[in-house]
Amino acid sequence: MLSSADIKYYSSLKQKKYREETGKFLIEGFHLIEECLSSSYFLDMIILRDDVELKDFPEIRKKINGKKIRVEILPDRSFRKLSETESSQGIIGVVSKKDMTQKIDSKIVIALDRINDPGNLGTILRTAYWFGIEAILISGNSVDIYNSKVIRASQGGIFHVNVKNDINLLQELINLKDSGYKVYLLTLSAKNDLNGINKNENAVFVFGNEADGISENIINSGFEEIRISGFSRCESLNVAVSAGIVLHKITS
Amino acid sequence: MLSSADIKYYSSLKQKKYREETGKFLIEGFHLIEECLSSSYFLDMIILRDDVELKDFPEIRKKINGKKIRVEILPDRSFRKLSETESSQGIIGVVSKKDMTQKIDSKIVIALDRINDPGNLGTILRTAYWFGIEAILISGNSVDIYNSKVIRASQGGIFHVNVKNDINLLQELINLKDSGYKVYLLTLSAKNDLNGINKNENAVFVFGNEADGISENIINSGFEEIRISGFSRCESLNVAVSAGIVLHKITS
Repeated sequence: MLSSADIKYYSSLKQKKYREETGKFLIEGFHLIEECLSSSYFLDMIILRDDVELKDFPEIRKKINGKKIRVEILPDRSFRKLSETESSQGIIGVVSKKDMTQKIDSKIVIALDRINDPGNLGTILRTAYWFGIEAILISGNSVDIYNSKVIRASQGGIFHVNVKNDINLLQELINLKDSGYKVYLLTLSAKNDLNGINKNENAVFVFGNEADGISENIINSGFEEIRISGFSRCESLNVAVSAGIVLHKITS
Repeated sequence: MLSSADIKYYSSLKQKKYREETGKFLIEGFHLIEECLSSSYFLDMIILRDDVELKDFPEIRKKINGKKIRVEILPDRSFRKLSETESSQGIIGVVSKKDMTQKIDSKIVIALDRINDPGNLGTILRTAYWFGIEAILISGNSVDIYNSKVIRASQGGIFHVNVKNDINLLQELINLKDSGYKVYLLTLSAKNDLNGINKNENAVFVFGNEADGISENIINSGFEEIRISGFSRCESLNVAVSAGIVLHKITS
């Protein structure tokens, strides 16, 4: 049984600060819990609202199979303290963060510079998963990848891609270039179009902040810029849409 | 000067019901007002918070030029009743809806079946504008295109595309097919890939609801299905990302 101190502890995981302190984060809804159970992430605990039972979620039971996973039940009033959705399905998971320091050995890498909107970051993770891209670099000063809105927008994709976050992105790009990767910066003012690139090379595609684009120190480091050509007089594309277009182009 | 009855009236435009009754909607922030002034939409009025002045927005003044546009000033307390953003720039516009009954004569048409999320709908309008797609069909039971979140996510694109909304989508698709358009339904189970289509034909691309996909009555009407191939075991792409990939493919 969870004590009120326990509930306070798990409820604190809604804040980035406590996720960093504890190395744990929350996920909500049966679909995310299924995706977590199909991945290399470790599900510490399932918390159910007292009007639902584990047998209401046969897919989850099937995936738990032999694994020992702690299950706790809470009355609605306590469950609400953990829930972050308006019409909750009554099931929440506590997940341990994974070690993110592995070496990058993916042919295609996505690099994200200060993405600010959780929906955009989550959608990019979802899209990367769809196109089989496994390596994603995320600069410091980005939205936390374990923010509940990021996880929801990723539709579980977050569990299936390798993310290296809170890094010095410029240094990482220089290292990748030195080890043979072509580094492409997506900018509005680039001369060359995405459609002209060589699809056989190992490549990193860098996408910048929603309002400011890519940081100046990266822009000024001599990497190649490319653009997605449009017909309009002004404006830009949404960053998640841009990432989708690039990944489709490069993988098809 | 705006009376408290006026403020109540304009504040009611935050609700779909009153937007439909009055044929007016609100936009917020200088960028959307600039985009509106560069379009064929009619800007009825600019409402300023009393700590900003029209001369703080030189681009808007330039675009107003000779046009007579009513400007009203409100103290913060009243302005907040109209505002829908957390850190407002202190400028709101009242815009008249446009007649949406024009004939479709665009080579490429986007059709949206019950899109539910305002961010998705707005992002699709933004993407369509970027790729120069002018005709967008929106079924009944979709999020209102004049919802403030749709307008914000469109980044002003809403002012530059022709939208026919709240239509009987199946009937419209049949009409377009009869007049020579190829109708493509984006589905997860389609046999044919987007990359195989003939880019020279007039074509309509149909995208379905975020959770349920395209309505059964449309699926069962004998149109061709296509998919965006992915490498993952399950899951789908975000609908706005899918639309971006299709539009990039078809226009490049």
